[in-house]
Amino acid sequence: MFLVEGNKTIKEIPTSDYRINEVFSVNPADSSLGNLTATEITPNDLKKISFLQHPKDSVAVCELKEELLLEESGVQLILDGIQDPGNLGTIIRLADWFGISQIICSEDTADFYNPKVIQASMGSFLRVNIVYQNLENYLTKNTQPIIGTDMNGSSFYDYKFPEKFNLVLGNEGNGIRPEIEKLLTDKVTIPRFGKSQTTESLNVAMSAGIILGQIFGRK
Amino acid sequence: MFLVEGNKTIKEIPTSDYRINEVFSVNPADSSLGNLTATEITPNDLKKISFLQHPKDSVAVCELKEELLLEESGVQLILDGIQDPGNLGTIIRLADWFGISQIICSEDTADFYNPKVIQASMGSFLRVNIVYQNLENYLTKNTQPIIGTDMNGSSFYDYKFPEKFNLVLGNEGNGIRPEIEKLLTDKVTIPRFGKSQTTESLNVAMSAGIILGQIFGRK
Repeated sequence: MFLVEGNKTIKEIPTSDYRINEVFSVNPADSSLGNLTATEITPNDLKKISFLQHPKDSVAVCELKEELLLEESGVQLILDGIQDPGNLGTIIRLADWFGISQIICSEDTADFYNPKVIQASMGSFLRVNIVYQNLENYLTKNTQPIIGTDMNGSSFYDYKFPEKFNLVLGNEGNGIRPEIEKLLTDKVTIPRFGKSQTTESLNVAMSAGIILGQIFGRK
Repeated sequence: MFLVEGNKTIKEIPTSDYRINEVFSVNPADSSLGNLTATEITPNDLKKISFLQHPKDSVAVCELKEELLLEESGVQLILDGIQDPGNLGTIIRLADWFGISQIICSEDTADFYNPKVIQASMGSFLRVNIVYQNLENYLTKNTQPIIGTDMNGSSFYDYKFPEKFNLVLGNEGNGIRPEIEKLLTDKVTIPRFGKSQTTESLNVAMSAGIILGQIFGRK
């Protein structure tokens, strides 16, 4: 089981593959819950159940879904050891925005059922298929180009992205691990326009957004 | 006075316009502090001074800088009521990455000296000039195009951005306020490629990154 918080996202669950086990709400009659039936609880109880600092209106206890690997179609994201739940949630939200249907995560990537990830994804986890795989095995068998983001890659502005490919995003501190790096078809990077050499490289979720923005704009 | 945390950023302060008043460190001899002289404190004292959950090695007490409005050059960011310190810090970091030299903030935008903003900017606040202004007055006098990001704008993929302009980013919940909206030359938006109508719009910092990525790629 996992927890989804807030009427706005809870209301959308029935339109997805996820099943709700039970909803608890401080106001079960609230129309923003749609047709869902909820058990009334006190704000104090909600506070005890919630993982948020400022709990919302309701929480839904949902059933974990069986993982199902889809045939790759178009652009697919590959996450190699993303650790930060906020980054994972943001990347799921980006995938949903750009209509990417599947994200393949390495087994050590943060758990997307983590309440912080669910929260940061703003309901987008309902619309993007997320699967955990042994990346080395998965990518070895994959027939599409495998493009990694890497400080030493060529500028993504000059790179001709194919129609279908896997975009690999690496760990926040260490990037893509060597075993995966050797499976890459190509490496791309976002060039820095500022003159300072000490500028920190962009956050992984931001880099993903900038690259996806460019790829989809070319279509 | 304001606080900067972590040797990595503290070491860069002398290369900027900011003045350090005093540095406190759990290890003043640490070479990552460069040539800076620090007063030794215990990890427990650091914990009391620090605003971070996991305090780093040192903190520097710095002097606030007098605000100085630069002549606009190239692309300039205008923030209309950005509230979240993390978003402001991320936007400062983006500006630094893309070599944008100035950000003009409305008077109700989050204070960039807020420790959370300084932290999220990862040292980039040292290289980007940030000024708080009455935006209506400022933009009325400004002679460059004023382009706002807005859900109802035209696709930024098809938009021909001028060489020099102001890019206006609005408040997280309410967008650009009407008084500023009426001063806009044009409105642009990032089209959604996903099919779901319920997908949340992108976070303001992410939108800024995607748009800046596209603008700078065209040059």
